[in-house]
Amino acid sequence: MHIDILTLFPEMMEGVFQSSILKKAQEKNKFSYNLVNFRDYTTNKHRKVDDYPYGGGAGMVLTPQPVFDAVDACLEDKATKPRIVLLCPQGERYTQQKAEELAKEEHLIFICGHYEGYDERIRTGLATDEISIGDYVLTGGELGAMVIVDSVVRLLPDVLGNESSAVEDSFSTGLLEHPHYTRPATFRNMSVPDVLLSGDHAKIAKWRKTESLNRTLERRPDLLENYSFTEEEKQILDEIKQNKSIE
Amino acid sequence: MHIDILTLFPEMMEGVFQSSILKKAQEKNKFSYNLVNFRDYTTNKHRKVDDYPYGGGAGMVLTPQPVFDAVDACLEDKATKPRIVLLCPQGERYTQQKAEELAKEEHLIFICGHYEGYDERIRTGLATDEISIGDYVLTGGELGAMVIVDSVVRLLPDVLGNESSAVEDSFSTGLLEHPHYTRPATFRNMSVPDVLLSGDHAKIAKWRKTESLNRTLERRPDLLENYSFTEEEKQILDEIKQNKSIE
Repeated sequence: MHIDILTLFPEMMEGVFQSSILKKAQEKNKFSYNLVNFRDYTTNKHRKVDDYPYGGGAGMVLTPQPVFDAVDACLEDKATKPRIVLLCPQGERYTQQKAEELAKEEHLIFICGHYEGYDERIRTGLATDEISIGDYVLTGGELGAMVIVDSVVRLLPDVLGNESSAVEDSFSTGLLEHPHYTRPATFRNMSVPDVLLSGDHAKIAKWRKTESLNRTLERRPDLLENYSFTEEEKQILDEIKQNKSIE
Repeated sequence: MHIDILTLFPEMMEGVFQSSILKKAQEKNKFSYNLVNFRDYTTNKHRKVDDYPYGGGAGMVLTPQPVFDAVDACLEDKATKPRIVLLCPQGERYTQQKAEELAKEEHLIFICGHYEGYDERIRTGLATDEISIGDYVLTGGELGAMVIVDSVVRLLPDVLGNESSAVEDSFSTGLLEHPHYTRPATFRNMSVPDVLLSGDHAKIAKWRKTESLNRTLERRPDLLENYSFTEEEKQILDEIKQNKSIE
């Protein structure tokens, strides 16, 4: 996979690309990236990337020219058709399903605005996807692009080691994780639940399933709506609900 | 505001803190930050921060000791009580409302896990808030912490200049933004809508309101559920819906 990121702040991003999983994935030749400062593609004398909005109003708007020309440069010598992702608050909300979809592509291009709005022609004439990582306002698209890159690259084959994929599996069951405990058994007067020290594997499995269902019920009941319950899970959930109604 | 970030990958984060709004906010003395590698607080010989889970199973778990001791160090010489935010998939989903709440605090501490789960005592004995920035799996909490810091710091008084706060206002109306256009009037055969070149300000305002309502209706109808409509907006929305039913 190759990833191009169009940004006015490439220096924001190097640290993330040179750390942890993203660094390892490059060393394993699983993906490569290029940070493109689209200011380098301006054709005007003052290297301006934005201008006043037609029709008046506050705020500046990114002009289409440098963005289109920078994307053209990313397409040179490429036979495949890329997905071109625009980071913006108007976009579809990012999900794990979308990460899995993007992980199948060979070439991703991200366009990051900063402060300004995008000229609509960037949206309609260039972007294949518009994505928002959540309902909050960020200064620019850079953090969103890094979030998407991290979530996508870790899904590429052979990128994750066993130790980390196990945690992923636990999340991707569709339920929130049960509590974890490790040494010491007592820390600052807080002790590990007895069941986890019991050595009784069936009991431990049931405790974990109960905690996982309970936490999901309390914090994210929406996740249970589309969840495929096993018979055992249905029974545990009924027990939890009965106990709650007694309280 | 002071922000401490507990992480095993401080090198991921410097680029973000030294760019754009976060850099300017520090120069204006609006906030300060400290990246704390909690591995420096381990008391074991091999500087291990994780261990096997009690009760068995795959994956490693962050031990409580270095995290608690690192937080203790962040509290030294501080009179105020901090909010201690744990980044985790089980947390409440982050929103702009939460950003506004955190922006009122004097001291924030973020705890970033990486791959591993957290020992439950970090959750119950230390964290005041558990936050997830969205329903997708990331390698660690670092990107989440940076997202929250960016969204919070830009809300601090006098951090944003006028040019950027205008864009924010447009988003925080509760509707998605209308399309923006800037020069040139025609670019690669794509033209700016005539109305924006008309100079008729009432017509432009109505066009923008209509586009904003239409885009929200198409992409994020959930936002309209809690929206307080003006009489004019109600009328425009009815027209949009009528036109759609004719199509």
